[in-house]
Amino acid sequence: MNTPAPRAARVTPISGFPEYLPAERIVEQYFLDVIRETFELHGYPSIETRAVEPVDRLLGKGGDADKEVYGVTRLAADEDEDAGEVEFGLHFDLTVPFARYVLENAGRLSFPFRRYQIQKVWRGERPQEGRYREFTQADIDVVDVGELSSHYEAEIPLVMAEIFAKLPIGRMTIQVNNRKIPEGFYRGIGIDDITGTLRIVDKLDKVGPEKVQGMLEEAGCTSEQAEQCLALAAIRTDDLGFVEQVRALGVEHPTLDEGLEALSRVIRTGMENAPGALVADLKIARGLDYYTGTVYETQLEGYESWGSFCSGGRYDALASDGRTTYPGVGISIGVSRLLGLLLGKGLLTASRSTPACVLVAVNDEEGRPESTRIATALRSRGVPCEVAPKPAKFGKQIRYAERRGIPYVWFPGAGEDGGDQVKDIRSGEQVDARPDVWQPPAEDLRPQILRREG
Amino acid sequence: MNTPAPRAARVTPISGFPEYLPAERIVEQYFLDVIRETFELHGYPSIETRAVEPVDRLLGKGGDADKEVYGVTRLAADEDEDAGEVEFGLHFDLTVPFARYVLENAGRLSFPFRRYQIQKVWRGERPQEGRYREFTQADIDVVDVGELSSHYEAEIPLVMAEIFAKLPIGRMTIQVNNRKIPEGFYRGIGIDDITGTLRIVDKLDKVGPEKVQGMLEEAGCTSEQAEQCLALAAIRTDDLGFVEQVRALGVEHPTLDEGLEALSRVIRTGMENAPGALVADLKIARGLDYYTGTVYETQLEGYESWGSFCSGGRYDALASDGRTTYPGVGISIGVSRLLGLLLGKGLLTASRSTPACVLVAVNDEEGRPESTRIATALRSRGVPCEVAPKPAKFGKQIRYAERRGIPYVWFPGAGEDGGDQVKDIRSGEQVDARPDVWQPPAEDLRPQILRREG
Repeated sequence: MNTPAPRAARVTPISGFPEYLPAERIVEQYFLDVIRETFELHGYPSIETRAVEPVDRLLGKGGDADKEVYGVTRLAADEDEDAGEVEFGLHFDLTVPFARYVLENAGRLSFPFRRYQIQKVWRGERPQEGRYREFTQADIDVVDVGELSSHYEAEIPLVMAEIFAKLPIGRMTIQVNNRKIPEGFYRGIGIDDITGTLRIVDKLDKVGPEKVQGMLEEAGCTSEQAEQCLALAAIRTDDLGFVEQVRALGVEHPTLDEGLEALSRVIRTGMENAPGALVADLKIARGLDYYTGTVYETQLEGYESWGSFCSGGRYDALASDGRTTYPGVGISIGVSRLLGLLLGKGLLTASRSTPACVLVAVNDEEGRPESTRIATALRSRGVPCEVAPKPAKFGKQIRYAERRGIPYVWFPGAGEDGGDQVKDIRSGEQVDARPDVWQPPAEDLRPQILRREG
Repeated sequence: MNTPAPRAARVTPISGFPEYLPAERIVEQYFLDVIRETFELHGYPSIETRAVEPVDRLLGKGGDADKEVYGVTRLAADEDEDAGEVEFGLHFDLTVPFARYVLENAGRLSFPFRRYQIQKVWRGERPQEGRYREFTQADIDVVDVGELSSHYEAEIPLVMAEIFAKLPIGRMTIQVNNRKIPEGFYRGIGIDDITGTLRIVDKLDKVGPEKVQGMLEEAGCTSEQAEQCLALAAIRTDDLGFVEQVRALGVEHPTLDEGLEALSRVIRTGMENAPGALVADLKIARGLDYYTGTVYETQLEGYESWGSFCSGGRYDALASDGRTTYPGVGISIGVSRLLGLLLGKGLLTASRSTPACVLVAVNDEEGRPESTRIATALRSRGVPCEVAPKPAKFGKQIRYAERRGIPYVWFPGAGEDGGDQVKDIRSGEQVDARPDVWQPPAEDLRPQILRREG
């Protein structure tokens, strides 16, 4: 705790590093609690990885990932032997650290290994609406040695669907595709550049079908091939109807068959266990080389322009140490992005700015021990409470509670028989109460998360 | 998530950045849950602050704090306009960010303002036993505008005592002193250099009374003054007896009277609400200028050489914006240090490495939907479970559960009437069960934290 008192200078926010007021943080905690509880109900244990990774691991196979990485150096390093290049950086997602953790601990983990991870990540991007430099992600992944059973690709989005059903938000739709469908389809119509074609089709939402048609033709497709690509990407069904619609396009390829079967398994499992939560959406590409099977994106109804709040997919090689390859499937909720939208637009609030359900009033400073005993009795039965800061007039003590949204004020010795009374300051109702038996209504025990229609 | 598959290189741990295996993390989560729940029962809301602060705020009033700070820079910064000196650093405690948060949000907070904060902090120190470069702290503070009522100094250690009583650890003793006692006492015997004297007396545990006597005399004390300082520092009582023992030394000073009265209030409140948890220990100094009243340190019985696991005190100026001063009192648990000791010495383990209480077996791949329905039914009633990865022989499925410590395996359709059965794989007992009514014993629902005598 070597903490000097801070000086007055510089108390402005840092762009891209959001912080919440206590009532907003209560909403965030509620979300994180629902997420954690659901992950654990599905048998995912938690891990946390250190905030830093070696820079060369973060930069991975190159590209312009380095634009996003924050380097970390000891300020005193230039004075001693640690001086030199930047060795460590803050992680920019939870997948790179997880892959490293799996390799590092492979001998001490049981496979197939599943885990959840809820942590902050950092990216040095230009901040903009819904994009932060420090933000929280909640990931689940399953990883196995050599081969991974395909049923995990169907199970993992169900965990997220369960979370979205529990949260006080609008309708979240998890859009699922399988990379083998476009791959097989493109090959079936004579297109060889799969990645290039996927990358163009991925722009559909941004630029529209006409531009994509033109871009595909520029890239060497015939106009008929381009039309077929667009026809495939337009298919979206919340049942198994997508199979027939693809078949109607008259394209044949064994990889296409594999993809259709795999996607059918995922959608069928979704229909059985979370009706309406998953749709087959054949334009979803996730634009990335390393996804090799199922891919997921998730939109919030009415806020499609915000993009995906929950994405992931299957990798054939989540990690590899050269001898052993670890295939995996994972999905990640962008918690800060989702809360940034919901809190930023005032769609959610907490009923109070403190966990305290009761303020125990203080009659005079000599009475504080009695008020403390009452608070201890309430807490021992799980009722969060605090004791008033000062033996002020009762009106002032009630206003202290009001300002924080605390619903009850407890008055020691206020009853006609000298017993205590408790007042619901919302209704004004005041009744006799004993600290060893009184219990608030269940909905008042914790702050409530209130949804406003936006 | 733009995540390239990691390469094989560099999967060694980074010194000072500990990571837990899943079973260890379950112990950590248990500790963090107890801490959070207790903070909330006492009416503390949570805040989280960003990981970074401006470097000039972290370095504060100088000294060699800069040795400890990790600077943060965008790796791409030298390619664009952000280039130059290191502007931000990772916070090294939670008090500096909290003080800044109070100043930044003063107009939007209600005072007296209390909060808890459980976050990672980073220090670029040389790692050693019980000292990390990345570690978790759990802090509570109460801060007010202009003046802070003294009763908070008595209440805040009670929150920590309640936490220690709930955790499966040995006896934690919170040692309390009040800076006004040595200050008044030193002035009363004619010593003027209060800070210098405190700093020497603070070495008592390290170097012993004889060396301290010598150092005090070197610093200008008479041998009688030095003896008096040592006599004061030797006083330690778990009741109000310390007052009489100080009085018996025959020193008079109004600041001493104030300090004795203030410490009596804290100890009396402790005796009433948490008997045995607090002791008056007049050698506690916390060696720091900015504590102005009560100070706390906490030792774990049998591990006194590890130093304090929970420390804090009262500041007259937690924060100040030049016009308004915010006095505060706070205390902080070094969660990682405590767990580093308990897990490192094998004193605590979790009963399993997963939250799953039940593994639902799979008879064959066609039976997976039925196993999934059973799992969904169990989860809907709060029973964490997972479905077996493969329809292997039952012995193999049981071993899958055993390796993770999952206590129950559910066999669909194994009963004589075609109903399900569940097996406690520890006892081997297998009974008929229905997924819509079966409930494990309460102690099996969550992983248990097991204490081994060390």
